Amino acid sequence: MDKYRLLAIVEYDGTDFAGFQSQGNKRTVQGELERALHQITSEKMRVVGAGRTDTGVHAIGQGAHFDTAWNKSPEILQRALNAVLPTDISIRSLIEVPKNFSARHSAKSRTYRYTILNQSIRSPLTSRYALLVQEPLNVQAMNVAAHCLIGEKDFGAFGTPPRGDNTVRQVYRAQVERAGERVLIEIEANAFLYRMVRRIVGTLLLVGKGWLSIDEFRQVIVKERRAGESVPPQGLCLIKVKYELAANVADCTRSEG
Amino acid sequence: MDKYRLLAIVEYDGTDFAGFQSQGNKRTVQGELERALHQITSEKMRVVGAGRTDTGVHAIGQGAHFDTAWNKSPEILQRALNAVLPTDISIRSLIEVPKNFSARHSAKSRTYRYTILNQSIRSPLTSRYALLVQEPLNVQAMNVAAHCLIGEKDFGAFGTPPRGDNTVRQVYRAQVERAGERVLIEIEANAFLYRMVRRIVGTLLLVGKGWLSIDEFRQVIVKERRAGESVPPQGLCLIKVKYELAANVADCTRSEG
Repeated sequence: MDKYRLLAIVEYDGTDFAGFQSQGNKRTVQGELERALHQITSEKMRVVGAGRTDTGVHAIGQGAHFDTAWNKSPEILQRALNAVLPTDISIRSLIEVPKNFSARHSAKSRTYRYTILNQSIRSPLTSRYALLVQEPLNVQAMNVAAHCLIGEKDFGAFGTPPRGDNTVRQVYRAQVERAGERVLIEIEANAFLYRMVRRIVGTLLLVGKGWLSIDEFRQVIVKERRAGESVPPQGLCLIKVKYELAANVADCTRSEG
Repeated sequence: MDKYRLLAIVEYDGTDFAGFQSQGNKRTVQGELERALHQITSEKMRVVGAGRTDTGVHAIGQGAHFDTAWNKSPEILQRALNAVLPTDISIRSLIEVPKNFSARHSAKSRTYRYTILNQSIRSPLTSRYALLVQEPLNVQAMNVAAHCLIGEKDFGAFGTPPRGDNTVRQVYRAQVERAGERVLIEIEANAFLYRMVRRIVGTLLLVGKGWLSIDEFRQVIVKERRAGESVPPQGLCLIKVKYELAANVADCTRSEG
């Protein structure tokens, strides 16, 4: 039977996963997706994700493609997969894409959001999805600093390239805003280096706490100064992967409530 | 040393608790609070909560009082307690109250919120704190029905009274509103019967799905018709307990972001 390609938009709570990508015997999102697909279709297939989220990082709109000979509609496959997948993963949409489409290589951009809870007391109902920062933060300064990231730049200061590749990436959008006790940092780029978002957030926090001026933040970007430490994974969420496809794909990711 | 009384406002993620109140060897919020207080003060004391939340029910603003001879400030005790309490409980505020004050009996009202996620696909990032309802809901009809609950009424149709007591309670506020994919049901009353909120929500859902008219919902209140089933606990949260005290107590509970 002829195989064809499907693109899934996947949501997951990253708390109990060793990231997206399969590695040995660890529990991964890719591993659970491949297991569920095998259970439903009896096919052994490889799932390719748009971004290799780290251990503990969440996703609302991860993209992932695979090839299958499934002979009913994608809607029926989606329902069947959601019935057998563990409660911490769900398929939000599933559509057919061209055979040369790749969830990774066809992605136009990835958007990550990092959530900070900025209050003096820790919060049990928020700690699973946010980093607690107890010192007051100058969010306006953080936002101005974040704007310095926009453009095509060498981001080697903030992350490790895969296998010595070049460290130039294009950041389309970078903003920091307050929403009640939360501070939300959103960054959209064509692609990211390993740990890049978490080191950028760690460095923006130095600005927010007044330890680094905006000029000094600019010096970090051009490697005249060291970046801050990487922040923990639980605040990070892959919000959206942008593809140029039919409207139903572009619109299937919702923003968090 | 003389003892005095303190009122704590407590937040907890109810997922891993057998409710607030101590019962045998089960893990409870009261038990963890008493253990932390003993660890810090070396006193054995009993903690009295405003509401006995069930297994799996969360709280942002639970009230709880206890008597102590602690000889430093409440602020220092609060910090020490938050340092030793497990990550799923925190003390949001801690103040001295009169000796005849009771977290339970001095409470003027309790406000509960029930959160429904109303979308066709289950959501791993929301399921810990909301009930998934996949059918479309008529939120306007639910809101009109909820208004019928307001006033001093016999709510025996929706819950069991403690030890055969009377089932009259006063509901001050009851509203249902949509916020994106979420439907939020908030009810404020002087007090609640056992499972009352969860059976009200179960019955409001019958209205939202069109199985019960608003007139039929009124018939449930006057026991001419059976109430709906109780909904699961993970969507329920004790938002606020209102006390008539200094302004810092009244204002220490925040609304969820």
